[in-house]
Amino acid sequence: MVENYYAVIMAGGGGTRLWPLSRKARPKQMLRLIDHRSLFQTSVERLQGLFDLEHILVVTVEEQALELQEQCPRIPRENFLLEPMPRGTASVVGLAAIALRQRHPDAMMAVLTSDHYIGDEQRFRQLLNIAGMAAQEGRLVTLGIPPTYAATGYGYIQSGEVTCQYDDVKIRRVVRFKEKPDELQAQLMLAGGDHTWNSGMFIWQVKRILQEFDRQMPGLMSGLEQIDKAWGTPQHEQVITQVWQGLQPETIDYGIMENASDVVVVPADGLRWSDVGSWDSLFEVLPADGQGNIIIGGHHFGLDTRESLVYVAQERRLIVTIGVRDLVVVDTGDVLLVCRKDEAQKVRHVVNVLKETEESYI
Amino acid sequence: MVENYYAVIMAGGGGTRLWPLSRKARPKQMLRLIDHRSLFQTSVERLQGLFDLEHILVVTVEEQALELQEQCPRIPRENFLLEPMPRGTASVVGLAAIALRQRHPDAMMAVLTSDHYIGDEQRFRQLLNIAGMAAQEGRLVTLGIPPTYAATGYGYIQSGEVTCQYDDVKIRRVVRFKEKPDELQAQLMLAGGDHTWNSGMFIWQVKRILQEFDRQMPGLMSGLEQIDKAWGTPQHEQVITQVWQGLQPETIDYGIMENASDVVVVPADGLRWSDVGSWDSLFEVLPADGQGNIIIGGHHFGLDTRESLVYVAQERRLIVTIGVRDLVVVDTGDVLLVCRKDEAQKVRHVVNVLKETEESYI
Repeated sequence: MVENYYAVIMAGGGGTRLWPLSRKARPKQMLRLIDHRSLFQTSVERLQGLFDLEHILVVTVEEQALELQEQCPRIPRENFLLEPMPRGTASVVGLAAIALRQRHPDAMMAVLTSDHYIGDEQRFRQLLNIAGMAAQEGRLVTLGIPPTYAATGYGYIQSGEVTCQYDDVKIRRVVRFKEKPDELQAQLMLAGGDHTWNSGMFIWQVKRILQEFDRQMPGLMSGLEQIDKAWGTPQHEQVITQVWQGLQPETIDYGIMENASDVVVVPADGLRWSDVGSWDSLFEVLPADGQGNIIIGGHHFGLDTRESLVYVAQERRLIVTIGVRDLVVVDTGDVLLVCRKDEAQKVRHVVNVLKETEESYI
Repeated sequence: MVENYYAVIMAGGGGTRLWPLSRKARPKQMLRLIDHRSLFQTSVERLQGLFDLEHILVVTVEEQALELQEQCPRIPRENFLLEPMPRGTASVVGLAAIALRQRHPDAMMAVLTSDHYIGDEQRFRQLLNIAGMAAQEGRLVTLGIPPTYAATGYGYIQSGEVTCQYDDVKIRRVVRFKEKPDELQAQLMLAGGDHTWNSGMFIWQVKRILQEFDRQMPGLMSGLEQIDKAWGTPQHEQVITQVWQGLQPETIDYGIMENASDVVVVPADGLRWSDVGSWDSLFEVLPADGQGNIIIGGHHFGLDTRESLVYVAQERRLIVTIGVRDLVVVDTGDVLLVCRKDEAQKVRHVVNVLKETEESYI
């Protein structure tokens, strides 16, 4: 445990990529998918040994705070920072940064996700430790996931020469951040070998990132300073709401990272990482049975059923599958989804349509 | 309407071939699959114009009688004959025959199914009329369905020379009844052109079929005579129960038809007949939408979904299908079936297994 090193878990997202299980009011990070633990819980638990619970901050929105606090009751209440409304990851990082500056002028922060899976947690802690060391010299450190296929659903980081090395980990200068590519670009980047997936996890000194906010997002920075002054006063809530209402949504990637100096990337290999971004990604995360099936909940009877996922919310329901391959069946009670595994990404199209016509199901 | 011509609808079956919708206590003939009418109701209604309701007998078992009477309340109560327990179609036919002999010594009977679909009802009535004429001369008449593919799930009837002709219908002598064939036999019979599927529908004089019972099933016949004597007395129910308890289950095909004389077959073409014997057969019966889908109940949203059947018992449930072809999805609340269309026949394997382990679902 490093005295001035803090973890900041971003847990305010409202994604519906695992719809119909994930909903607006019950986003992915809250779902208890792994051994009856939620992705948020595993995101906290995997930090044990590197961060005390007192050194873990959670940034979320009011509607989600209670559930998250109940899932991890040992994190101090004051470590939950509430956004009045979502405004993108830039403001999340800014809010956490000024909260940490109050605690420790030389605080370091690891900005982490709440809804990803990481198989090798020890390796993850090792990399966070190394990233912390690299960040102590003023660098802005990103974790880049070595790509395993030509994904078009992630942003990419192009890396250049090695700037430093800890153990077996070579840290490289970041040449460029790239938005989600098309298929051809993705294949070229995969072949080139100098690109990693942008994991959305960052490690830096608080004062260093606040310099970048001051330089690149001065409007947000001045708002943050107002919040800083009002912290602990009766006006605090009113001030933060006022500031947040005036913000344009912005991500830390586009708002800060793309034009920041001294940005480096730690190649985060060996993590068995997954963003659990769609139903088919559960095959990266959960063990399959002898027929390659993942069966969660319910009472399943399969005849000639392979490489398929069955999720059933109601334990007493009988699910029978016959002659089924590469299929996803998700039954939440009010909704039944039956989807070809390799088209699971299209769930978001459905959600977008239903938003207009059948909002109660979202 | 011919004064001495009666229809006998066999409605005591307990099949589970449309499981999980059809159950032991709610067999196929009771299901309201066609325009919210049950197969039993359509079996009765298609007789209008040929048989008065007073000339329609229904043979069933006690557990099903009430529901069937409610579905067709205009059939006189006394026309429902109750078997104490199922003993195969031979005894069903025998029971109806002695009931009809009491009504009319020269009664003719058409033995009909309650759980099949017939698209061209006018043609059906025409064929029953012709079969009745052929039967008046003492023949035992069967309806044979011209095969459209090499089915292995039906019995076959081999026909020989033409014995008589009415309108365009050539009635042929039956050479042989054949049990369900294997794939190769089925293909040979289809190619040969002289085989039809055994529809399980028969037309004959009551006195003529009772002669065959007397000759081929004398045990059953003497039981039937006892029942005949007790008919209308307080002992009637006791006698029929006693007789039925002593019977071995036997079908009319094996018990009588295979060794009967003067058996002929009416080629029942143009009926658009289906035995609705499995979920995929609904595509022969119900109209599909522009994507080839049949959607019954629920609220369905399909993306790239084709040639599939979705049946949902709960109207308020949302069913989303993505990238799905040739799939059957049946949701009855307690059970969800997801099955490849061309493996729908395998539902019975599942039912057989569940009978042993999870009887509550059958």
